Amino acid sequence: MTLLRSYVGGGWHTAPDEGRPLHDAVTGEEVARLSSTGVDFAAALEHGRRVGGPALRELTFHQRAALLKALAGHLREHREQLYAVSARTGATLGDSRFDVDGGIGVLAAYASRGRRELPNDTVFVEGALEPLGRGGTFVGQHVATSLRGVAVQVNAFNFPVWGPLEKLAPAFLAGVPSLVKPASPTAFLTAELVELIVDSGLLPEGALQFVAGGVGDLFDHLTEQDTVSFTGSASTAAKLRTHPVIVNRGVRFTAEADSLNLSILGPDAAPGSAEFDLFVKGVVTEMTVKAGQKCTAIRRAFVPEQHVDAAVEAISARLAKTVVGAPDAEGVRMGALAGLEQREEVRRSVKALVDAGRIAFGDPEEVDVVGADAERGAFVSPILLVADPERAEPHEVEAFGPVATVMPYTSTEQVIALAARGRGSLAGSVVTADTAFARDVVLGVAPWHGRLLVLNERDAKESTGHGSPLPQLVHGGPGRAGGGEEMGGIRGVLHHMQRTAVQADPDTLSAITGRWVTGAERRRTDRHPFRLHLEELRPGDTLVAGPRRVTQQDVEHFAEFTGDTFYAHMDAAAAAANPLFGERVAHGYLIVSLAAGLFVDPDPGPVLANFGVDNLRFLTPVKFDDELTVTLTCKQITPRDSAGYGEVRWDTDVTRQDGESVARYDVLTLVAKQEAGK
Amino acid sequence: MTLLRSYVGGGWHTAPDEGRPLHDAVTGEEVARLSSTGVDFAAALEHGRRVGGPALRELTFHQRAALLKALAGHLREHREQLYAVSARTGATLGDSRFDVDGGIGVLAAYASRGRRELPNDTVFVEGALEPLGRGGTFVGQHVATSLRGVAVQVNAFNFPVWGPLEKLAPAFLAGVPSLVKPASPTAFLTAELVELIVDSGLLPEGALQFVAGGVGDLFDHLTEQDTVSFTGSASTAAKLRTHPVIVNRGVRFTAEADSLNLSILGPDAAPGSAEFDLFVKGVVTEMTVKAGQKCTAIRRAFVPEQHVDAAVEAISARLAKTVVGAPDAEGVRMGALAGLEQREEVRRSVKALVDAGRIAFGDPEEVDVVGADAERGAFVSPILLVADPERAEPHEVEAFGPVATVMPYTSTEQVIALAARGRGSLAGSVVTADTAFARDVVLGVAPWHGRLLVLNERDAKESTGHGSPLPQLVHGGPGRAGGGEEMGGIRGVLHHMQRTAVQADPDTLSAITGRWVTGAERRRTDRHPFRLHLEELRPGDTLVAGPRRVTQQDVEHFAEFTGDTFYAHMDAAAAAANPLFGERVAHGYLIVSLAAGLFVDPDPGPVLANFGVDNLRFLTPVKFDDELTVTLTCKQITPRDSAGYGEVRWDTDVTRQDGESVARYDVLTLVAKQEAGK
Repeated sequence: MTLLRSYVGGGWHTAPDEGRPLHDAVTGEEVARLSSTGVDFAAALEHGRRVGGPALRELTFHQRAALLKALAGHLREHREQLYAVSARTGATLGDSRFDVDGGIGVLAAYASRGRRELPNDTVFVEGALEPLGRGGTFVGQHVATSLRGVAVQVNAFNFPVWGPLEKLAPAFLAGVPSLVKPASPTAFLTAELVELIVDSGLLPEGALQFVAGGVGDLFDHLTEQDTVSFTGSASTAAKLRTHPVIVNRGVRFTAEADSLNLSILGPDAAPGSAEFDLFVKGVVTEMTVKAGQKCTAIRRAFVPEQHVDAAVEAISARLAKTVVGAPDAEGVRMGALAGLEQREEVRRSVKALVDAGRIAFGDPEEVDVVGADAERGAFVSPILLVADPERAEPHEVEAFGPVATVMPYTSTEQVIALAARGRGSLAGSVVTADTAFARDVVLGVAPWHGRLLVLNERDAKESTGHGSPLPQLVHGGPGRAGGGEEMGGIRGVLHHMQRTAVQADPDTLSAITGRWVTGAERRRTDRHPFRLHLEELRPGDTLVAGPRRVTQQDVEHFAEFTGDTFYAHMDAAAAAANPLFGERVAHGYLIVSLAAGLFVDPDPGPVLANFGVDNLRFLTPVKFDDELTVTLTCKQITPRDSAGYGEVRWDTDVTRQDGESVARYDVLTLVAKQEAGK
Repeated sequence: MTLLRSYVGGGWHTAPDEGRPLHDAVTGEEVARLSSTGVDFAAALEHGRRVGGPALRELTFHQRAALLKALAGHLREHREQLYAVSARTGATLGDSRFDVDGGIGVLAAYASRGRRELPNDTVFVEGALEPLGRGGTFVGQHVATSLRGVAVQVNAFNFPVWGPLEKLAPAFLAGVPSLVKPASPTAFLTAELVELIVDSGLLPEGALQFVAGGVGDLFDHLTEQDTVSFTGSASTAAKLRTHPVIVNRGVRFTAEADSLNLSILGPDAAPGSAEFDLFVKGVVTEMTVKAGQKCTAIRRAFVPEQHVDAAVEAISARLAKTVVGAPDAEGVRMGALAGLEQREEVRRSVKALVDAGRIAFGDPEEVDVVGADAERGAFVSPILLVADPERAEPHEVEAFGPVATVMPYTSTEQVIALAARGRGSLAGSVVTADTAFARDVVLGVAPWHGRLLVLNERDAKESTGHGSPLPQLVHGGPGRAGGGEEMGGIRGVLHHMQRTAVQADPDTLSAITGRWVTGAERRRTDRHPFRLHLEELRPGDTLVAGPRRVTQQDVEHFAEFTGDTFYAHMDAAAAAANPLFGERVAHGYLIVSLAAGLFVDPDPGPVLANFGVDNLRFLTPVKFDDELTVTLTCKQITPRDSAGYGEVRWDTDVTRQDGESVARYDVLTLVAKQEAGK
């Protein structure tokens, strides 16, 4: 039988011992053996730090994003291979797609966001410039830099592909190498994934390492620059979190633990309504997809008291139609649990839950199975319980399988209080068409949730469902759910970077961030800066143009031409009564139009278009016969690796004859590269 | 002698026992006694949760900000009272100002940022709307809601006023009640502060509680909605962090611990340069302010090898002029440590440091003291050491007093590596006029730092110095510094809120956030929305105006009038060659000008001004004879409690005859309140 190999220190490592057996969840047959004996964990961490980290930090965010995109493409091409292995974990094809395609989707999403929202650089500039002195010589700016350690990723057994990929993508984009440790039962699928990735040759050496088996003394060698992201049980999280090295060296530790996620049916959603059906389908889907082995799955279903019987009946009817069996057998809708141990655990938990209520559907000891042996494979029936919501068990005991509990509620206040008894969840849903009920419940239960879905007829068609974490939204929840956060778009990248407040003079800050900031040196260029190609431009390149006098005639003409005859421009008496103006003033849009007239270079050149304006503020009213000067300064240059141009952001300051700023904004242009012009 | 009282559960509590004595740091006399015996910690937490939290959450961010502002004013009026007590902690008047005025400054800064950067509401909408489906019926938005627990604040002895206030301000603004636990040696000063606050009657009951003495079984009663912010030693942090309740209930725990902060003199800054003098002054200031008892103080001073002798000489010369003694004695520049125990600790640490080098200035056992008894008061001489940078001690042993170590370095690479040996710091500084050196060092050491200051002649005049945390910048650092973050503007407020990703249809999301979002219902109002006062407007109120045809004549006229004769508007052949346009197009500024002409209501009314535009993007080129329609929708209403108007943000969508958007942006207006018009 194959002994799974680790990929550490730049090569494949095979343990010298026999390892422990891993089993096919459907047949009970041995699939592979697992052992990390002989892995030098200290050396693996050092390899990540000395080889992987520097290689990643040489790349810009955009270059890392391009590699993630390529990797997503490579895995997409080979996904059939992953589906085949995935079936042996008990997963149906639908389950496998959830895991495999979901994971590839995270890579693609991070690739796309990285290109769109991060600079083509290695430093992330976060938030606004903070003026720290009135004179403008001392300013602050938060920046984020890549941690110099390794992102250690301890994954759960239920998502052997999505789990590692959703942790890899943000770390990789942040410039931090990953060391992946899969959970044992399904480690053979993660091993297949890692083999595909390593074989692709796409990632820089050291950016990804993989430990097939236990982590040995790995934690003893962590430092304050390493991070640990854990997904799994709360008890293991607590054990790892209090490891002396984690505690004493301040290692960043995030946990995502199973939680007792809820779904609430709104009082408006009576049987027969679209929302009632959506709720029933949602509960059944969450119970049966991945055989309920989702940390986001619905465990607690709250139903208005008067609809409990109807809901239980409708859910049970659907569950009765759910064919359980071998993933490749005809008609099968729900596969096996990941292993026999998992089944024992589910049966134990159901016993505890039964104490607080009754089983309305299913039998934990009995299930009809298609195409497999019900005892050798880790099969279990979906189990629906009904319980008293004031009992402790339904809020505390998680059966990590196709198990949910329906509970009645009688008021909005009560259901909010019941929600809190879960002590923190990853995900919750509220099924209602009533926006006021949705608002009350969402704001009432939000402090206990990482994610909340409001489902109704209006969004159902496009909804991704209760159980699906999305790369653009945070995944994680407070309290019992681990208190961590993953993904959430760029937030997930920043988890792997150090935020530092930098205080400096504007020139030094510009040198550090690669962006011109207010107060830094402005350089008048020989040529009009619109005649410079992307590679020739430098932050700080400046054009000063004007003055242009704004006459009463200009204002009246502009009013007539555009139709903007607002009284502040046209009516002296009314303008005088306006608390902000005191007399007639020029239109803001006239000011920016005239400013463009001053700074634009008319002839064809590298500047292709002005595609937008940001943060325009009119600071001082322009009165008749004021004279306007515009100062345009190149602020930020973002080359596009895959295009013949890049984006250039220009600080634009329109001033009056006395030097006072009347309007301040960023002009956004596309500027061609030199090479593209040839 | 006075027994300090706790303020818990809505009243003052006096312990039934004698308590332990606290001593005047200058005279050694007993100042007060300290005991929290009899405090019901579970009840205190419940009081915060049941009384303080709900009262705070009834207020909007702006209302909470106004209370912080009032509190800052109240404390400013009574600061002399605090200075007087502060002197008994060993602090000079300058030290007291650092502590007291610094703390008041944090309150004022949060008051101001709250009004400016937070909505006049109780929910914080974070980041951009996330479209989750192509059809626009399913969208995501991160929101932050107040945690439903208590912010437990465990403070250090060195800043008895600033410490509690810098923790209180962001928690209060977040709508979370605080429970303040001061460190023993200086608890009498925090008690004085709390008495002032309680007597002011400004804060809602339950918003602030105070425990004079030990925390008893407080931690046993924490829940997942509570937070703990700790400032103090790394060893206490480790102990609290691993408390079973913190671990098992996922209580948010942040620590800010002392660290071995560095200052680096640049190679450009030779003796005689302005930067050399700034470095010397900075080291001396950090050694002597608060007698070096600042967690941000410089402990490691790295100097180019060739300048070490000069630097040591210059620092020693300044230290020799530093008069040590009673805070109220003539000419005293440095006061006492907080107590005799602190002095013993400093002496022990200096002994360890001497092993790695030598003392260049001062004697840990001897000091000339003015106006006090050198042995009864906790006085110690400033101590400057010089050490081999390759030894471990200077990077590991922190003498929490007026002690710093100078170490030579020979290259940028070496000094970056030496910085990392501090294993994480709160603050660092680089004294250099060389922007390239500053960039290399800052980006090289940033992963180990929470804050970095670049100091030179350009920013020195306005610089707030190496050791001063500022409310707008994050305070905290990785690794040894505790791994936490405090302040940093609104970031600090969000530490006390739960971030939740909400997924919903646009109408429901609008109801939850109180803001109109794309895809939500637009309501055509009977009157032009510019005729509605602030109280009459509702998110979703919409005006559709147009169409207006854009002719070649319009474009040519606008070009001539404004001077913007860019070829894409004027030259058919050149425009055809442009990769984005293909033919002549209208000016972007013409489009927004015409749009204003369509949506503006000319007569005097509630709309006072259009003060800005955000996120303007030109999405599709406008060709000759295209017809423009503008749809203006009220998106967000921000009343100003202290003004007769508020801000209204309008979603503005300019479309072409085929419905395609050509420009999209937010128009920002000031709109009068009804009451103000009367």
